[in-house]
Amino acid sequence: MDTLQINSERLWRRIDELAQVGAIADTNGCSRLALTDEDREGRNLVITWMEDLGMEIAIDGVGNVVGTWFGNSTDKSLPLVMTGSHIDTVRTGGRFDGNLGVLAGLEVVETLAENGISPLHPIAVGFFTGEEGARFAPDMLGSLVYVGGMSLESTLDIEGIDGKRLGDELERIGFRGAAPCPGPIPKAFIELHVEQGPILEADATSIGAVDSVQGISWTEITIEGQSNHAGTTPMHMRHDAGFAAAQIATFVRQIALETGGNQVGTVGKIDLHPNLVNVVASKAVITVDLRNTDDEVLQHAESQLHEFCKALSERENVEITSKILARFEPVTFAQELVAEVTKAAESLGLSVQQMTSGAGHDAQMFARVCPTAMIFVPSEGGLSHNPAEFTSQEQIKDGANVLLQVLIQLAEEQNE
Amino acid sequence: MDTLQINSERLWRRIDELAQVGAIADTNGCSRLALTDEDREGRNLVITWMEDLGMEIAIDGVGNVVGTWFGNSTDKSLPLVMTGSHIDTVRTGGRFDGNLGVLAGLEVVETLAENGISPLHPIAVGFFTGEEGARFAPDMLGSLVYVGGMSLESTLDIEGIDGKRLGDELERIGFRGAAPCPGPIPKAFIELHVEQGPILEADATSIGAVDSVQGISWTEITIEGQSNHAGTTPMHMRHDAGFAAAQIATFVRQIALETGGNQVGTVGKIDLHPNLVNVVASKAVITVDLRNTDDEVLQHAESQLHEFCKALSERENVEITSKILARFEPVTFAQELVAEVTKAAESLGLSVQQMTSGAGHDAQMFARVCPTAMIFVPSEGGLSHNPAEFTSQEQIKDGANVLLQVLIQLAEEQNE
Repeated sequence: MDTLQINSERLWRRIDELAQVGAIADTNGCSRLALTDEDREGRNLVITWMEDLGMEIAIDGVGNVVGTWFGNSTDKSLPLVMTGSHIDTVRTGGRFDGNLGVLAGLEVVETLAENGISPLHPIAVGFFTGEEGARFAPDMLGSLVYVGGMSLESTLDIEGIDGKRLGDELERIGFRGAAPCPGPIPKAFIELHVEQGPILEADATSIGAVDSVQGISWTEITIEGQSNHAGTTPMHMRHDAGFAAAQIATFVRQIALETGGNQVGTVGKIDLHPNLVNVVASKAVITVDLRNTDDEVLQHAESQLHEFCKALSERENVEITSKILARFEPVTFAQELVAEVTKAAESLGLSVQQMTSGAGHDAQMFARVCPTAMIFVPSEGGLSHNPAEFTSQEQIKDGANVLLQVLIQLAEEQNE
Repeated sequence: MDTLQINSERLWRRIDELAQVGAIADTNGCSRLALTDEDREGRNLVITWMEDLGMEIAIDGVGNVVGTWFGNSTDKSLPLVMTGSHIDTVRTGGRFDGNLGVLAGLEVVETLAENGISPLHPIAVGFFTGEEGARFAPDMLGSLVYVGGMSLESTLDIEGIDGKRLGDELERIGFRGAAPCPGPIPKAFIELHVEQGPILEADATSIGAVDSVQGISWTEITIEGQSNHAGTTPMHMRHDAGFAAAQIATFVRQIALETGGNQVGTVGKIDLHPNLVNVVASKAVITVDLRNTDDEVLQHAESQLHEFCKALSERENVEITSKILARFEPVTFAQELVAEVTKAAESLGLSVQQMTSGAGHDAQMFARVCPTAMIFVPSEGGLSHNPAEFTSQEQIKDGANVLLQVLIQLAEEQNE
């Protein structure tokens, strides 16, 4: 059984074919925002492939699509072993993010089918609505609804960046399905995804056995100072919102370095007002992104930031207010499933390391209801959410073969 | 003679009347960008007042308007004693900036005339085209051309922020005059202006005897890093253009504080790309405004900034390039004329202090060709380039009375 291999040519071709839908001219990337015409076309293509493989298709009330393969099994009552991801992209996205996890799932099913291997548990491949959050917030919306984390009714009422209602757009593209939300709880969930970061490449490692997802803390900080002439206002008489913003951005780096471990901190957005060369800024709005796998450590970083802003406000005579934009607790995956990923990679002679996901994924929603883990493959240059996102055919083959092994293990095991 | 006083009611009324041209609704401010219809209307109003005072009007090739009052003098060959400023404003400007200097000049002429005082030297009141630079760059453009610092031909070809050619707009509003550029060199130039800064107010001083104008160094710094996922990219693998921008903004403050004296430093403009909460910025464009009255010290500050950027570039693995947006050497006014201002203020029982101008003014152009100084009056809260800009009628009266005394001194003296 350990010599069974997926067909990497076939998987690579499917990735390419799906990437033609919403392809961005002169790049390898694509643009398929959730519930647009391009998303519909991509969905229909993947469903066609699922049907060709004899899978049963279920579409739920928020447009999540789950194709289930029973093989020769006649007992359809056993819980599903589920894999999958998403096929929506950011506006200028790559072809691997999400799509890989869905199409590798189909490739596993086809490999098993053509080798006459029929699992005890049915294998389900899902793709979940609006994982990117690029049109409808929050991100990972479909999988959140699937596991019962958000009600269908409130989800359908979400307004997109273009002012369109999610429920209306779902109807429009014909993907408001009848399958229930929340959906059936799988026996286990395993997701293959590109890393979207530089760690595997830097460590020259083929496979990441993802054991956790970082907690995320997003804060928007508004600094109100006073607009003054940059030439006529002595330094000690300033209330410079721009300088205060710079101080915070510098301190966020300090928090990350002093905390160490997997702590990261980013000020990615700074808006000054009036934003002119010769005017001391009266106002600055900045965002702070803090992440850690340990919620206590993350909370400590948040409180350090808070204290710093308080002292800064007094020192610079500016008013500082903050607003939480997002706050997700860290997620820990099932250790036995992470071990399964590691074992599968090793059995295939692949280098593997346990790691944290810095980005959010559908899998973290499933971790609420069933044993879950993820498999990462390297991203060239750590690049993601970019048409130039790239993972080689060889690296993808390795990841899909690990997925194959793990799914065989999970689906053949007796449900206890 | 030292009891002669200007009529502060009349001056205040003229300021108010001129402010009605291009008035900004629900504020005391006005909007008269250079060479717009509003500027034309303002110009015509001031010229009418000049004519009412029996002044001879000269309009030169760049639209500078100089009204000359000869009193009873029959010898028109003596050099002019000149005062004046500008009547164009920024898009959302106050009513005092520039306008005060022009209208106080007219008030001095009217005071002399109605008191039967005829000076030896003619007194000229000028208003100079496009001092603000808010529509056509550079600022102080009219006075620069007046003193021969820029050719008329190249000035007429300047394109405004709205794509219009300066020469065309000048023709359109009927202010392409026949008087020669450069214009006649005055015996002396003295300009009354609002401080546009907080120093006089903070020191509770009525009059600033301005002895210099700070040198100005504007640099645009572009930082090219790498766009990365804020969650998946470890701190040590980042090339964060946003962090580098914050480091520079912090260092600019440090330069100003360590240099001390009148050194100021401002980062008023920061633009990050892509400017998103969860993306490490790939690019930042910021501006640095450095000013000092001592060019050597200013040069040292510039070189400190340059060295810092070089080291930062290596430390953060980002590419840093810079472009000089503007560079004006400091200007030193004529010491004997500054002393004249101080003496006049003291003779009127007004508190006075020598000070530097942090902003640029038409007077600094005249300093190239004749003895020049400026008189400052306080700006409430240091506010400027803002409809809420304010100087009280009493403070304006004090400033105009000092101008009156200085002009009497200059115009009565024998030309040597």
